[in-house]
Amino acid sequence: MGDISFSNGNSNAIANGNMNGNGNGYFQRKSCWYEEEIEENLRWCFALNSILHTGATQFQDIQLLDTKPFGKALVIDGKLQSAEIDEFIYHESLVHPPLLHHSNPKTVFVMGGGEGSTARELLRHKTVEKVVMCDIDEEVVEFCKSYLAVNNEAFCDPRLELIINDARAELEKREDKYDVIVGDLADPIEGGPCYQLYTKNFYEHTVKPKLMHGGVFVTQAGPAGVFSHTEVFSCIFNTLKQVFKYVVPYSAHIPSYADIWGWVMASDYPIKLSPDELDLRMKQRIIGENRYLDGKTFVSASTLSKAVRKSLDDETHVYTEGSARFIYGHGHGSSQKHSHG
Amino acid sequence: MGDISFSNGNSNAIANGNMNGNGNGYFQRKSCWYEEEIEENLRWCFALNSILHTGATQFQDIQLLDTKPFGKALVIDGKLQSAEIDEFIYHESLVHPPLLHHSNPKTVFVMGGGEGSTARELLRHKTVEKVVMCDIDEEVVEFCKSYLAVNNEAFCDPRLELIINDARAELEKREDKYDVIVGDLADPIEGGPCYQLYTKNFYEHTVKPKLMHGGVFVTQAGPAGVFSHTEVFSCIFNTLKQVFKYVVPYSAHIPSYADIWGWVMASDYPIKLSPDELDLRMKQRIIGENRYLDGKTFVSASTLSKAVRKSLDDETHVYTEGSARFIYGHGHGSSQKHSHG
Amino acid sequence: MGDISFSNGNSNAIANGNMNGNGNGYFQRKSCWYEEEIEENLRWCFALNSILHTGATQFQDIQLLDTKPFGKALVIDGKLQSAEIDEFIYHESLVHPPLLHHSNPKTVFVMGGGEGSTARELLRHKTVEKVVMCDIDEEVVEFCKSYLAVNNEAFCDPRLELIINDARAELEKREDKYDVIVGDLADPIEGGPCYQLYTKNFYEHTVKPKLMHGGVFVTQAGPAGVFSHTEVFSCIFNTLKQVFKYVVPYSAHIPSYADIWGWVMASDYPIKLSPDELDLRMKQRIIGENRYLDGKTFVSASTLSKAVRKSLDDETHVYTEGSARFIYGHGHGSSQKHSHG
Amino acid sequence: MGDISFSNGNSNAIANGNMNGNGNGYFQRKSCWYEEEIEENLRWCFALNSILHTGATQFQDIQLLDTKPFGKALVIDGKLQSAEIDEFIYHESLVHPPLLHHSNPKTVFVMGGGEGSTARELLRHKTVEKVVMCDIDEEVVEFCKSYLAVNNEAFCDPRLELIINDARAELEKREDKYDVIVGDLADPIEGGPCYQLYTKNFYEHTVKPKLMHGGVFVTQAGPAGVFSHTEVFSCIFNTLKQVFKYVVPYSAHIPSYADIWGWVMASDYPIKLSPDELDLRMKQRIIGENRYLDGKTFVSASTLSKAVRKSLDDETHVYTEGSARFIYGHGHGSSQKHSHG
Repeated sequence: MGDISFSNGNSNAIANGNMNGNGNGYFQRKSCWYEEEIEENLRWCFALNSILHTGATQFQDIQLLDTKPFGKALVIDGKLQSAEIDEFIYHESLVHPPLLHHSNPKTVFVMGGGEGSTARELLRHKTVEKVVMCDIDEEVVEFCKSYLAVNNEAFCDPRLELIINDARAELEKREDKYDVIVGDLADPIEGGPCYQLYTKNFYEHTVKPKLMHGGVFVTQAGPAGVFSHTEVFSCIFNTLKQVFKYVVPYSAHIPSYADIWGWVMASDYPIKLSPDELDLRMKQRIIGENRYLDGKTFVSASTLSKAVRKSLDDETHVYTEGSARFIYGHGHGSSQKHSHG
Repeated sequence: MGDISFSNGNSNAIANGNMNGNGNGYFQRKSCWYEEEIEENLRWCFALNSILHTGATQFQDIQLLDTKPFGKALVIDGKLQSAEIDEFIYHESLVHPPLLHHSNPKTVFVMGGGEGSTARELLRHKTVEKVVMCDIDEEVVEFCKSYLAVNNEAFCDPRLELIINDARAELEKREDKYDVIVGDLADPIEGGPCYQLYTKNFYEHTVKPKLMHGGVFVTQAGPAGVFSHTEVFSCIFNTLKQVFKYVVPYSAHIPSYADIWGWVMASDYPIKLSPDELDLRMKQRIIGENRYLDGKTFVSASTLSKAVRKSLDDETHVYTEGSARFIYGHGHGSSQKHSHG
Repeated sequence: MGDISFSNGNSNAIANGNMNGNGNGYFQRKSCWYEEEIEENLRWCFALNSILHTGATQFQDIQLLDTKPFGKALVIDGKLQSAEIDEFIYHESLVHPPLLHHSNPKTVFVMGGGEGSTARELLRHKTVEKVVMCDIDEEVVEFCKSYLAVNNEAFCDPRLELIINDARAELEKREDKYDVIVGDLADPIEGGPCYQLYTKNFYEHTVKPKLMHGGVFVTQAGPAGVFSHTEVFSCIFNTLKQVFKYVVPYSAHIPSYADIWGWVMASDYPIKLSPDELDLRMKQRIIGENRYLDGKTFVSASTLSKAVRKSLDDETHVYTEGSARFIYGHGHGSSQKHSHG
Repeated sequence: MGDISFSNGNSNAIANGNMNGNGNGYFQRKSCWYEEEIEENLRWCFALNSILHTGATQFQDIQLLDTKPFGKALVIDGKLQSAEIDEFIYHESLVHPPLLHHSNPKTVFVMGGGEGSTARELLRHKTVEKVVMCDIDEEVVEFCKSYLAVNNEAFCDPRLELIINDARAELEKREDKYDVIVGDLADPIEGGPCYQLYTKNFYEHTVKPKLMHGGVFVTQAGPAGVFSHTEVFSCIFNTLKQVFKYVVPYSAHIPSYADIWGWVMASDYPIKLSPDELDLRMKQRIIGENRYLDGKTFVSASTLSKAVRKSLDDETHVYTEGSARFIYGHGHGSSQKHSHG
């Protein structure tokens, strides 16, 4: 390493109009990168401040990164799951629409959700008396408890019951029914760990019987962009349409995913409220203010664009045991392709 | 984050012919990268295990990275200085040739060298009674003391006198003379912090007068590849040729630099030993065994290839105050502050 | 280069459990990349099939790339302008809302638009009798004429008058007024080439006087994501609000931009239609069917999410000569020359 | 695309001290990259001017790229084979040592070598009357004939006999013997297409019987860096030592490979000349002047560094049918892992 006599070379470099960009701070900011393959031919790269944690659980590899553009980021098996600065968009969108469309949601069952953010949003609802969160990977849950301060309060809330188990087995075992069931799971990839939690059979024989009168089911539903929605979003929608009377797909742009993301609500009871009714219920029921979702936002989110609407209408594929569609595997809930034993 | 029920998704992915390579471990290993611009159009990228430290001293930005291909790597202002697995090549090449070619080296002055590895190699010589190491950046020295365990012993050696100062000022101030003077400095970039420590004037009026009878000077001399040697290597050689009677350039491939690196020894006394003589002196004088350098290695290192020899012979440029050559800025000692005029 | 005897090495490699992913096709598909810095700390990278053209005009550098994820892509000064597979989203969104909200649009003036896609969409309107397209860079226009087959017909349409000039000078010089004026320009970056085409003064004294009775102005308005909309979108909206009675901001996700993009319509006449009215007018007036936009899509596009609505409402900045906001510079029209003060 | 009025935005950007680097020319130079995985955790990336050709032969994928740092580059199955600016180092090193150490080389058989550069160097020898070049991939040979102007003359030389066949089959079929046999083949990867052309059995029963009295065999021998030489270099050396009396390993840095590369000469006759003898023979026998190799260069090249010498001495592995070592697969001759049927 060199002696760097004669004052601050860096300021010289700047003063001299150094165009190479290797002035001080430049490289400090840009030499370390997180790189994700959104698709095989598409990469999304974040400059890194630091790698806070790297490890492997029984089921998956896990990293907590401190990224410059999106803050702390949870990466599971090489796929971004959740980024500090925009996870609120995902979690508000997953949680509040089904609870708001329910007349009085008291009990909720969450499949997956180990990160804790889904529980955090659920527990903001004054009506909620009980949240059962069932994730299979205890180490990930413990990891998130330790590292994600934003969910500390939720993890300590006495209304939260945390179960480590396969969500299907747990749901089938329990005799309770729930006002809302939330699917915060990896995407339905054939051969992936969560595929069976998206099938017609599962919805019909496991989920629906566990919903109380007036109950609402919601699930994350993968990418929902003008091109990417055909990967799983339209099939999840169509599969739910086979089982429930009312099915509402909606979507939102999540900057750290570099895509639009989708969710689908389903119920045998009408799920239709005006923006004003939604805003009123938020005011009455939710502690604190949403950062992303309000009545108008939901109107926009649930009014899909022409091409997406058409694909959903035309979709004929239904997830059953033994049929699936491939998605390259990105973002929230897509971790399944990568876990290891 | 998804629930990942149903066991090993990864083996399924492989079984299903997943060609995307995102099986477990793949991304774990490859999603975080250190990226260095060797030149504007050439990048050299190392997969990262972790970012051990990021900070800024008064003079420079500093990072300690844990890289997969090269182990721990010290990066200053976005340029790799030293990598755990191959720094021995640089430091053995810098230190042992001048000491071995000296009949009885007792005192050494190091300009720069804050990393401590140069001192470590010097202190392996039984004849050495005193090493003065003068680096300008106290924080970097402290940082290396803390983080680079491999040099712990050297930093504690009572024969080492560590000075925080500009090397030129220190050398001029001191009345002592030295058997060997070592230049472990950033490359001579015009406007860069170390340029003046490579000029004819500096060699003639500061370095040479501080060498004892029989003394040898050595300096790192930048990239020495078949193309890259014209950046500074040939000029350093030619400048030293103006001042010293005997000048010996030599080079070695350093994998983490993605290039050949060069050094130049200079003396007013003959510096020529056979491989066997070198091997004998190593055996007699050096504690422990070298990993890189022995007599034959030095023969090879100091026998430059045709094109490089020719460039060195033909070089006419001499570094003086007010003239310099640009190098894009890479590697050991060439660090951060490369601006050009 | 090696002899590759003995048949299919690739299947062998796979059979041998080669995990490096360098099976045939893998590298063929992935070794060449286009890399764009969306922001300083965020990169967006497309695998390349080929580099169809690289050149420089009097004003800008220009590349036509054949990318794997987005088809042919026009890159100006290192920023993606338009990608084959999703430019329809940008251009349908820019063109059809203002024309549909006008009762009978016959004449249109386009500032910029040299790519030809804006003209193409305009000329699909049966009511349109005259499109004046004014771009400053003749070479880019010629380039797009030659390379972008999708706009061939538009460039040959006798209703199109193509002018090479500065859009402001041209608009001021002309005595004609227009039913619709379209701004298809680079973003308003202080010191950038288009900044003056976004100021209150320009809107008030140049654009508005050139609108016919019932006239509508529309402009592209930069990134409009939940975070990125504060760069220029909210200011363009607020500036237009100072000048026009009715101002309608709307947005859409453009996959190749990795962001939501925004547009703003403005008029002194009400611009409010129901989705059904929009659908009816599209059916009556537009030749062929839109791929992206229909009535419901526009409802969703013009219903901004909570955070964006709030920012727009709260925005106080107005673009005037001598004030601007910085945007890192990405995507359509935001091109190359983004400096900041 | 934007109108870019008001003169050259780029010069503004520069004048304004734009630190984002998106001034004109910057991105022009840097947005397209070739990326090679030297190892799984190590990437080497060249900025691209253009992609001159992309295609697939019966055996392999092939690209000809125009790179900024290394000129035109031939890439086979995602691995750089040869770069315009430094292929002379590889080919001079492969060809001239064996021919110079032979007393009067008249006939040469080349296994592989379809690029033509090996033939080019061979045909510079005045003594050479016949070169048989046997490559299995006719399309690659035709491709190189068309695109690599530097080898045009060689391909037209009447002394060259070009055969499209498996090199082993061809060598065994022919009754001729040769003064020199050259292996310009992909590395010996187990399961790779060329593995059998590096085994003790092949050397003993196919190569050696085809050498004339005084004959010399040479083969490229993979990476030979201080770490990388254990991949195949040391084994090739050791395998040849089982078969020939005299075996000389040597190496050189090839900048575009980001590594030292190795070759091994073998003969049953002494292969030892002084630098002066080599220089004299070059002068007498070779038309034109070498750019890389001369007598001293060969002394340096064949004097391996301590660690490499030791590894070679200690190597016990011998390539036989059914044993091999893995190399990640880079550079010249390593294409075999990637070919397809």
